[in-house]
Amino acid sequence: MSAAISSRIVEIEESVLGKNQEAADKNRRLFAENGVLTINVMSSPGSGKTALLEAILSRIQGRLGAAVIAGDCATDNDAQRLRGRGAEIVQIVTGGYCHLDSEMIAKALPEIDLSATRLLFIENVGNLVCPASFDLGEALKIGVLSVTEGEDKPLKYPSLFARVDAVIVNKIDIAQAVEWDREKAMRALSAAAPHAVIFEVSARKGDGLGALLTWFEDRMPTPKRSGS
Amino acid sequence: MSAAISSRIVEIEESVLGKNQEAADKNRRLFAENGVLTINVMSSPGSGKTALLEAILSRIQGRLGAAVIAGDCATDNDAQRLRGRGAEIVQIVTGGYCHLDSEMIAKALPEIDLSATRLLFIENVGNLVCPASFDLGEALKIGVLSVTEGEDKPLKYPSLFARVDAVIVNKIDIAQAVEWDREKAMRALSAAAPHAVIFEVSARKGDGLGALLTWFEDRMPTPKRSGS
Repeated sequence: MSAAISSRIVEIEESVLGKNQEAADKNRRLFAENGVLTINVMSSPGSGKTALLEAILSRIQGRLGAAVIAGDCATDNDAQRLRGRGAEIVQIVTGGYCHLDSEMIAKALPEIDLSATRLLFIENVGNLVCPASFDLGEALKIGVLSVTEGEDKPLKYPSLFARVDAVIVNKIDIAQAVEWDREKAMRALSAAAPHAVIFEVSARKGDGLGALLTWFEDRMPTPKRSGS
Repeated sequence: MSAAISSRIVEIEESVLGKNQEAADKNRRLFAENGVLTINVMSSPGSGKTALLEAILSRIQGRLGAAVIAGDCATDNDAQRLRGRGAEIVQIVTGGYCHLDSEMIAKALPEIDLSATRLLFIENVGNLVCPASFDLGEALKIGVLSVTEGEDKPLKYPSLFARVDAVIVNKIDIAQAVEWDREKAMRALSAAAPHAVIFEVSARKGDGLGALLTWFEDRMPTPKRSGS
């Protein structure tokens, strides 16, 4: 990269990320006050983030007070798919921006009854690069990797995988059809995401979702201002 | 998005894209002088750009004077996969940047003998958002969409699909296993990429590659400074 372009990018990054951090810290305080576990779900386009959330919401059917903020460059297709499963759904259309930022989240939060929410999923824009840099105020960052994407993706997108608390390996029902080399993938994950818990699931068939939900439930905070 | 962040982003974009355009125009002149058809290949991570180039290079085995510039955030895995097929391969590691820019390409070009090259593939960073905004000096922009990613991706990433000359629908050999709804996908493509030629291929099995190669060959320019 040229010195001119790269110094300009570093300059922006510092300025944009500084502003982002302020709003992220505010969001985080709000989530803590309300006892909301917020989970930032990141992946490539098409790795199955929405299918995974559909499956999770169908399993918990309102039991845990779930909500989803879904981010996309265009369309509200994801929100449409997620509705009707007992959760509040808010769609953010970024208008071409490649990631969600904490101010977009802050603007969406008034549409959600946080006092009735225990589990808030933020479905980020499908992108394995840019979303990793933006703290949204979440408690957990999750990376979704589907078996169709190739075993070396964690090594090729290290910035995202280094930051996640868990990796969900999705579409394991078609692992054989796409010749998924599980051992190679696990080696890549333990190099790129050494501290992440790994879940192997099929959002479509339901395999592995129970363990994932238990893991979320174990991490739910107690609301600080709850009267109960 | 907040006014502060978004105005800062617009300001950067203008500055960065302006600098990018200058170097892109220079690259484009260099390609024209040497009679090189340059193709910017863009897609999600894992849609099969490298597998497609492996298959194409294996088919043409030096016959057309092919070269590849492969971009990745990290690792030279793609270059390693592509070598040994009679083509010059240059890897650009972006160090975390989410796309290639024209100055990165300009810096890589001295490593390629352009006078012996007729077909130059640029394999962009796997990302359906950011690469679309950066002209690299290419003659053709290609989007790759794999059947595992979902039929609505062209509608969700309209900025990229609006700009491509062709869309390669890849992994058609597993279309049935992933319940690919071809008709729905074609509707999305004709809305988002109305001027693009559509190729349905399997890089793994070789289906559809002949038609794609003919399409490339038909678009190759004649070298302006060729002595032959």
